[in-house]
Amino acid sequence: MSAKNEVVLVLNSGSSSLKFQIYRMAGEETLLAKGLVERIGLKEPVFNMKRQDGRSIEESPQIHDHLDAIKLVSAKLTDPDIGVLASLSEVTVIGHRVVHGGETFHDAAVVTDEVIKAIQDCIPLAPLHNPPNLTGIEACRAAFPGVPNVAVFDTAFHHSMPPSSYLYAIPYEYYKDYGIRKYGFHGTSHKYVAEATAKYLRHDLSNLRLITCHLGNGSSITAIDRGKVVDTSMGMTPLPGLIMGTRCGDIDPAVVLYLMRQGMSVEDINKLLNKKSGLLGVAGIGSGDMRDVIEAEEKGNEQASRALCMFVQRLISYIGSYYTILHGAHALVFTGGIGENSSYIRARVVKKLAELGCQLDETKNQVSGKPAIVSDDRSTLKAIVMPTNEELMIARDTVRVLREARS
Amino acid sequence: MSAKNEVVLVLNSGSSSLKFQIYRMAGEETLLAKGLVERIGLKEPVFNMKRQDGRSIEESPQIHDHLDAIKLVSAKLTDPDIGVLASLSEVTVIGHRVVHGGETFHDAAVVTDEVIKAIQDCIPLAPLHNPPNLTGIEACRAAFPGVPNVAVFDTAFHHSMPPSSYLYAIPYEYYKDYGIRKYGFHGTSHKYVAEATAKYLRHDLSNLRLITCHLGNGSSITAIDRGKVVDTSMGMTPLPGLIMGTRCGDIDPAVVLYLMRQGMSVEDINKLLNKKSGLLGVAGIGSGDMRDVIEAEEKGNEQASRALCMFVQRLISYIGSYYTILHGAHALVFTGGIGENSSYIRARVVKKLAELGCQLDETKNQVSGKPAIVSDDRSTLKAIVMPTNEELMIARDTVRVLREARS
Repeated sequence: MSAKNEVVLVLNSGSSSLKFQIYRMAGEETLLAKGLVERIGLKEPVFNMKRQDGRSIEESPQIHDHLDAIKLVSAKLTDPDIGVLASLSEVTVIGHRVVHGGETFHDAAVVTDEVIKAIQDCIPLAPLHNPPNLTGIEACRAAFPGVPNVAVFDTAFHHSMPPSSYLYAIPYEYYKDYGIRKYGFHGTSHKYVAEATAKYLRHDLSNLRLITCHLGNGSSITAIDRGKVVDTSMGMTPLPGLIMGTRCGDIDPAVVLYLMRQGMSVEDINKLLNKKSGLLGVAGIGSGDMRDVIEAEEKGNEQASRALCMFVQRLISYIGSYYTILHGAHALVFTGGIGENSSYIRARVVKKLAELGCQLDETKNQVSGKPAIVSDDRSTLKAIVMPTNEELMIARDTVRVLREARS
Repeated sequence: MSAKNEVVLVLNSGSSSLKFQIYRMAGEETLLAKGLVERIGLKEPVFNMKRQDGRSIEESPQIHDHLDAIKLVSAKLTDPDIGVLASLSEVTVIGHRVVHGGETFHDAAVVTDEVIKAIQDCIPLAPLHNPPNLTGIEACRAAFPGVPNVAVFDTAFHHSMPPSSYLYAIPYEYYKDYGIRKYGFHGTSHKYVAEATAKYLRHDLSNLRLITCHLGNGSSITAIDRGKVVDTSMGMTPLPGLIMGTRCGDIDPAVVLYLMRQGMSVEDINKLLNKKSGLLGVAGIGSGDMRDVIEAEEKGNEQASRALCMFVQRLISYIGSYYTILHGAHALVFTGGIGENSSYIRARVVKKLAELGCQLDETKNQVSGKPAIVSDDRSTLKAIVMPTNEELMIARDTVRVLREARS
């Protein structure tokens, strides 16, 4: 079968959720349907699905585990009424988002027993994410016998970082023995927007130096030199770097030691820095959602205003840093929920980048959720909005590595 | 007495050491003598002193505590043979380096009981440094009755940072209740070289935007906008930021949590990150001294070479960051043992800053330990070598705040 005829089911399995999209890759890549199962194994699970033509359903079935969820998704995809496939056998391959591929996976991988073992070995690096990702894979092996599964890693795109970027300045044996290094995350998103930006600019990615900002509830920024990641702001875990919805980003590591001495437990500190910090912690309005923080600032809330200042300042710092290590850049790319939709945040950032050759075009910046150049024509560093599509990138990588494995 | 006639004894008290310098501030500021007492309270203490005219002594007396050390220094300063003062009563004020002034001290302070109490209150933030600093102050109060003492804080110059720089993105109550924020260190050095650079460039500091790099065994970098610190790389403690002799600098804070889960104790992790990391940890040659690491690289040691790459990369990242948040800068200032003396490190850094308008002049860069512009004439961002003098800055601040207190 030609790779272009693949029908790819893309799955993102969380601890109690399952997001899915199904793509037909022939000709134009077509999203047939997408949906979500939530509250798996909890009270009142929810299922919803939306087709390409806009028709959608929402139900509240009994779903005890991920295998139940996969079976429900399968049934709905082939449902005579709402379904988009004549038969499940149309699904030729399943692509799974897996958060942490450690140092083992430099690219997506066709799932074998060895691959599953290697993903298990990465669990200490991503204790909350890799286990449910594996649960999704196992459920698909049971529900779709004979259909290949491909694991696509959030960390893989960052594999090209040089040691001077990915090593921490701690004794080398901590890297060799424990795998303590920078891995980076959101790789699938950074890769997608890098490729999409090159296409949009009608340039070859291999000629471009890009700074890509994925700004969502989690945020990260990546320096990309001719398609290869040079540095990225997240680390061994998705905690450091930019200020996020509930994560602190960069902080003196001695703060952790200080809080331990004050009697806090490891898990309490982990929760504090990952779940209660960031915009949520600073703004103090009970929400880490950027839209809520901006609204609070508009109403005169000083803490919210401070949170935004910090968010912008941290982002500008990283942009300057990556501009410098890239020896200049062609484009600064905004993506993710905030990056694609908040013209306000983009304006605050770009207005401070005049020294890097980037000037805002206020009119062009009034764009939301679609590709656009938002800097003015004089800018040597272009500011660009580029919607991300991690699921499509997973579908593409899935088809590519399957083809490579078969050839 | 006119402030200009002050004779200032400058002290830097460590846990088992006491460094001293004595300045006459009349006319040209003159260093009369300087010296060091080491191994206080330990076996075989050592005392040495060197006078302005080059004469020096070294002895191995019995020294049980800092009061003994101060009395020895006093005796030697007035010794009929080697001394530089006719009488101890010539000492008009004593300036003490104090590492951490927390949020209380925005400037140097004449020591009172309340000031001592406030320095004690900062001990949790600098448990290794503030106690011996206080011991030195107490010893001087006993040994020099009636002579005022002034505390000059490493943190004070950074006080002008805006909240968006000094706050961490954690819940606000951790700042209010525990004082967890960025304070910054090496402030006395950054202040000295900022003032000296303005003088050297024949500019008013209030017109300059500077990036000052203090590169020694401890290293930090500071963005200074018209004399006011905008941001600095160290944090609540002197651990984060640049890669240092034995300190890791920036690292995913989750690494600390990870190591806790592996069974390491708080104190072991503290020691790992502060004493066994940085150049020492990465180069693996048993030394964190930059000269040794460079020598090892010259002999083909790959780990040493990697340590240097990381050091340079981290520094360049910060320079780009600070250049951007300052909206461009007039000068990049190198100081500290490495910054003043290593033309090799300066060259590696400056050669990567072409995009910021800074180009190395290879010939001018062959300078060590004296003020020089080492960028070429086309550079819009000048690279400058400026030797620091923290003791002279302490002497100046000491005289200034004493005068202000008396007026």
